[in-house]
Amino acid sequence: MSDNSPLEAEDIERDVSGRILALREEDLGTFFRPRTLAVIGASDAPGRPNTAIYRRLRAWAERVGARVHPVNPRRDQVDGEPCHRSVADVPEPIDVAAVLVGDPLGVIEELAAVKARFAVVFASGFAELGDDGRRAQERMARIAVDGPRVLGPNTNLNAFEEFRDDLDGKAIALISQSGHQGRPVFQAQELGIRVSHWAPTGNEADLEFADFLRYFADLPEVGAVAGYIEGFKDGRTLMLAADHAARRGVPVVLVKVGRTRDGASMAASHTGKLTGSDAVTSAVLRQYGVTRVDGLDELLDTSQLLARAKPPTSTGVCVYAISGGTGAHMADLCAAAGLELPALSERTQAALHEWIPDYLRVSNPVDNGGHPVGDWRGRRILETLVDDPAVGVLICPITGAFPPMSDTLARDLADLAERTDKPVCVVWGSPAGTEPAYRDVLLGSRRLAVFRTFGNCVGAVRAYFDYHEFRCRHRSPFRTVPRSPSPAAAEARRLLASGPASEHTAKELLRAYGIRTPREELVDSAAAAVRAAAGIGFPVVLKGCGPGVEHKSDLGLVRLNLRSAAQVREAYRQVTACEGVEAALVCEQVPGGVETVVGLARDELFGPTVMAGLGGVFVEVFQDVAFRVPPFDEAEARRMVAGLRGFPLLTGARGRPAADVGALIDVIMKVQRMGLELDGVLTELDINPLAVLPTGAVALDALAVPAGTEGEPSHEH
Amino acid sequence: MSDNSPLEAEDIERDVSGRILALREEDLGTFFRPRTLAVIGASDAPGRPNTAIYRRLRAWAERVGARVHPVNPRRDQVDGEPCHRSVADVPEPIDVAAVLVGDPLGVIEELAAVKARFAVVFASGFAELGDDGRRAQERMARIAVDGPRVLGPNTNLNAFEEFRDDLDGKAIALISQSGHQGRPVFQAQELGIRVSHWAPTGNEADLEFADFLRYFADLPEVGAVAGYIEGFKDGRTLMLAADHAARRGVPVVLVKVGRTRDGASMAASHTGKLTGSDAVTSAVLRQYGVTRVDGLDELLDTSQLLARAKPPTSTGVCVYAISGGTGAHMADLCAAAGLELPALSERTQAALHEWIPDYLRVSNPVDNGGHPVGDWRGRRILETLVDDPAVGVLICPITGAFPPMSDTLARDLADLAERTDKPVCVVWGSPAGTEPAYRDVLLGSRRLAVFRTFGNCVGAVRAYFDYHEFRCRHRSPFRTVPRSPSPAAAEARRLLASGPASEHTAKELLRAYGIRTPREELVDSAAAAVRAAAGIGFPVVLKGCGPGVEHKSDLGLVRLNLRSAAQVREAYRQVTACEGVEAALVCEQVPGGVETVVGLARDELFGPTVMAGLGGVFVEVFQDVAFRVPPFDEAEARRMVAGLRGFPLLTGARGRPAADVGALIDVIMKVQRMGLELDGVLTELDINPLAVLPTGAVALDALAVPAGTEGEPSHEH
Repeated sequence: MSDNSPLEAEDIERDVSGRILALREEDLGTFFRPRTLAVIGASDAPGRPNTAIYRRLRAWAERVGARVHPVNPRRDQVDGEPCHRSVADVPEPIDVAAVLVGDPLGVIEELAAVKARFAVVFASGFAELGDDGRRAQERMARIAVDGPRVLGPNTNLNAFEEFRDDLDGKAIALISQSGHQGRPVFQAQELGIRVSHWAPTGNEADLEFADFLRYFADLPEVGAVAGYIEGFKDGRTLMLAADHAARRGVPVVLVKVGRTRDGASMAASHTGKLTGSDAVTSAVLRQYGVTRVDGLDELLDTSQLLARAKPPTSTGVCVYAISGGTGAHMADLCAAAGLELPALSERTQAALHEWIPDYLRVSNPVDNGGHPVGDWRGRRILETLVDDPAVGVLICPITGAFPPMSDTLARDLADLAERTDKPVCVVWGSPAGTEPAYRDVLLGSRRLAVFRTFGNCVGAVRAYFDYHEFRCRHRSPFRTVPRSPSPAAAEARRLLASGPASEHTAKELLRAYGIRTPREELVDSAAAAVRAAAGIGFPVVLKGCGPGVEHKSDLGLVRLNLRSAAQVREAYRQVTACEGVEAALVCEQVPGGVETVVGLARDELFGPTVMAGLGGVFVEVFQDVAFRVPPFDEAEARRMVAGLRGFPLLTGARGRPAADVGALIDVIMKVQRMGLELDGVLTELDINPLAVLPTGAVALDALAVPAGTEGEPSHEH
Repeated sequence: MSDNSPLEAEDIERDVSGRILALREEDLGTFFRPRTLAVIGASDAPGRPNTAIYRRLRAWAERVGARVHPVNPRRDQVDGEPCHRSVADVPEPIDVAAVLVGDPLGVIEELAAVKARFAVVFASGFAELGDDGRRAQERMARIAVDGPRVLGPNTNLNAFEEFRDDLDGKAIALISQSGHQGRPVFQAQELGIRVSHWAPTGNEADLEFADFLRYFADLPEVGAVAGYIEGFKDGRTLMLAADHAARRGVPVVLVKVGRTRDGASMAASHTGKLTGSDAVTSAVLRQYGVTRVDGLDELLDTSQLLARAKPPTSTGVCVYAISGGTGAHMADLCAAAGLELPALSERTQAALHEWIPDYLRVSNPVDNGGHPVGDWRGRRILETLVDDPAVGVLICPITGAFPPMSDTLARDLADLAERTDKPVCVVWGSPAGTEPAYRDVLLGSRRLAVFRTFGNCVGAVRAYFDYHEFRCRHRSPFRTVPRSPSPAAAEARRLLASGPASEHTAKELLRAYGIRTPREELVDSAAAAVRAAAGIGFPVVLKGCGPGVEHKSDLGLVRLNLRSAAQVREAYRQVTACEGVEAALVCEQVPGGVETVVGLARDELFGPTVMAGLGGVFVEVFQDVAFRVPPFDEAEARRMVAGLRGFPLLTGARGRPAADVGALIDVIMKVQRMGLELDGVLTELDINPLAVLPTGAVALDALAVPAGTEGEPSHEH
């Protein structure tokens, strides 16, 4: 959570970690449709950038019905109309102030004094330029706490573009942290795709992605929110906004730069955002059903389908092609994306064969051998396809324009879309894209979803089914997140208060939360080791311990399978002969089980993050781990585990005994609880390995790093 | 190799497996530019399909300067010109015969009698419709052996399309097994991309993909071959043609349907092709530097770049963007694709800062803060970028049309491309694509590579570097493939002749090829087992053997770590108590090593195929295996191993001892040799596990399936 946020206020609900549970409500309707617009720095000097900007803003204000007040201390008139010397002179309340001056802080203070509602700051040179700029941006944010809501700095005129108002149906609302990168979605209006808003959030000193997402999700005309994002300002506000959109049933599609370090570094120099770990960000987006895509073309294509399409009535896809090759290719891509192509019913197939020759395959994909032209048969075929209850989506790939056939097919598809609520997806693959069947007929439809490539069509349909599956199962985790600490928390804080934690202390912490560990005893003599072993029962494991002793296995400090007092005595002698080893842990030897790892790490953006994976080489070589950011429920923890590539090892691959996945999930949920309620005192936790047995799970080794002790050697105590 | 191929002839060079080592040479120049064209089934009856086809063929013949001879037993004239009753009546040699009749076999026989050079068969209803059709297609192929080369059946008019002849530079030659699926590449001529040929190969009864690939690779005007493929006719001809293209330096880009079972099944019903294993086909394409893409848009975009671009002088990519966000996004995608964005030299950066403000980043990506318009500065910036020796490719993403700036930038880029041999790639991201800067300026250039999406641009540039890296290292494996059996082959054939092979026999086979196995002895009494163990030296492993005994470990028939005569005697008693176990193998126990698997399988299309992977859960759960089709050299075997996800386990990940990768490669090469020279007698071989030690590699267990014994229990002998 950023330190300068108004969300610090005492009256806001918070979870046990101190993070907010509700977003602030901003009246962004006033921002997009103000009654008054003040333009500070307005000019009419020929050739000056501010002149051009002022005139664009003025034209926009006229379109939306806002009264304009130019403000400039050095002018009496601008373009023949009276100009105010300062914002204090503006004779009515200011809804939106466009701040065109290079050093905007003073102006924002003046705007705060007159209680202006919103300020848009175009100037750059803030957080994107390093520490000095970051400090200036923080000052701007502090003024905004009791002043106007600030959009920017480093934003642009995109919010004041001219939108087409002749398009109906559900719209895409756009949020972008770069004007140029948002443009293709805005320009989709040229293809007949409705775009209702564009929020260019820039550096997000105050107003941020989450504010706009929340606002757009509440608007009836918005069918999907598309975003181009370089970095989020705050992990929790993002999650709350995404949760809000999920509960409102408004899908969100994002390009999020920063998959690689190169991209993240360039993004940081562009808008000065934190980028956090990309794997953790991806996990959060999945948790909230946000579709992440790589390209702006996919952003547009996927948003378009999600905005226009009603929820599916079936998970089946039907592919209708005018060539067997096209059907084969599209079926292959669909199957590779995990889409189902169910066989059409016998009744449907019999009906199709009234119009399609018998030797052509109509089970799905349907090869029509050339769409019928010149009569009603083509339309009847299409209607028959969407009438089959197994069909949730119809995909018709038109690989290349072939006017005698594709023109009729395009018209029949546009007609069909008017008569069905099932999504009808068309691919127009001709490279030129200037053909009338495409530009006039297909793009002229407000109900078809039209694509230029097979790949983007399949990706969008996959996202469509995934989104609606998510929407049906989503329960807001914020309703059930703990708000006060569990009884274990006090004991845990006591354990963590005494400096660097040993393995023994880490395991005490786990036991405090009900996570099973081997029976064990910390001993400092060979005789005590033998007594402990006898009490625990042979065989035992003996581990050498001492401040700063890590990677015990690599150092030969872990002795397994000790079956007698003599073996325990000898093992104690050997491990304590090593430098730094002052004591030993004698542990119950736990047989078998699948080795897993469960841990907590702190993400720069999201704070405590739960990690789980398969142990040993799986985590070391394959990085087969999954992340989830609290709060999340048990079902989400189950998906987390089921998504591991090595998951079959837990369910009994190749005749192995199945492991107790429920016990693993229970540990994950307890670690989540620790992450939430020990935030600030526990920086890192690693249970490695956690042996998942046929019944239960046991933490065989653990590492806990109390806050403030990073890098210090742990002490046995 | 298909049974009906003329390649059966005795005078063709073959490798030790009997496969050909050279492609037949076809004079396809005569096919594409015939002096005479006979059209069998020509018609002028109104509304008949054959009328339309005849007239299109006639128009084509006029364009290419061929004399046309209509043939139809029921007509004296067609369109007012004399029509021949039969092909025998055609008064001059026939170069190409277009066969428009529904049952073409008789016509092809007549064409054989008059020694026509080529026949194009449009009729469908052959292999794509099942067994009857397959038999008819085989008859057609047999007639073709001494008759005309046949294109088809189930082909179309695509070879006779009208190509633009006003485009210069290197062209794309297109091969497609579906007319509709080839159309977008053909239509790329509307974007100014030169396409020189289109071979629609249909069912490939005779002429196949390989014939055309070989021919196109020899044409000076062809810069790249693009293909849409549903199945290859023959694995070896494909490999030879791809090898030929590689040696000629002509890149090949393919969409190959059949990644999934659904796609493969649909493809089979379309052109009746074998599809083989997709993983094996992918491996072959990689072996020969063929770029495989998923979409027709990628096919076009990648072929376009590869056709136009000269070999790289450096592996660096420079990204030049008119927005920091665009640069960040493109840099992220480049880095994710493994492309290098080297920092530009200090000299270059200093030069750039003469024209770009100091606060903008020019190290790479270069953020120009808005391309300069109205003067020479924009051109100087671009020239400075490509002059930097670290830059191999310049990418300029223009996210959305913004005419004041993007128009100038487009012109400057087109100018630049005329003045540099480095590839200049431009992305025009505006969804409409109707803007003059795109259609006239960018597409008007014959030297720029123009894309519509960031993703396709990055994919094409990745393919460009990969292809040229491949081309530099490629050595034809057919030059060194063995043509006669090694001394081991006779012994191996003797071992395989006695029916199903036991583990012991399989290991004898390995030893014959110099692959190390543990010392071991087959015994049939406890006393013999003890004697064998004493001879081998303790500890030993004892395995129960018997006809049909598989999965020994799962059945508890493998006893490890036997350290005394008593333990061996007890183990022998226990395993022989199990049903079916008649004897035991007493083996040296090999300590440590990394478990791998190496094997041979028969692919439907490619025959013997070598497989290698990491053992145990890696192969069982992660399917972490790689394939290569013989012949291949040691360097290829090394790439095979290095491409395994688990490869770090072999090189000593996390402090493990490094394994002897050279020994593993040696085993792979020996298994390859077995695959080649035992083809026909050895159906399957599995070394699992092969323990790769710090020095050497030992086959701990092996399975060999002699031809004809699949499914029969093996016998100990």
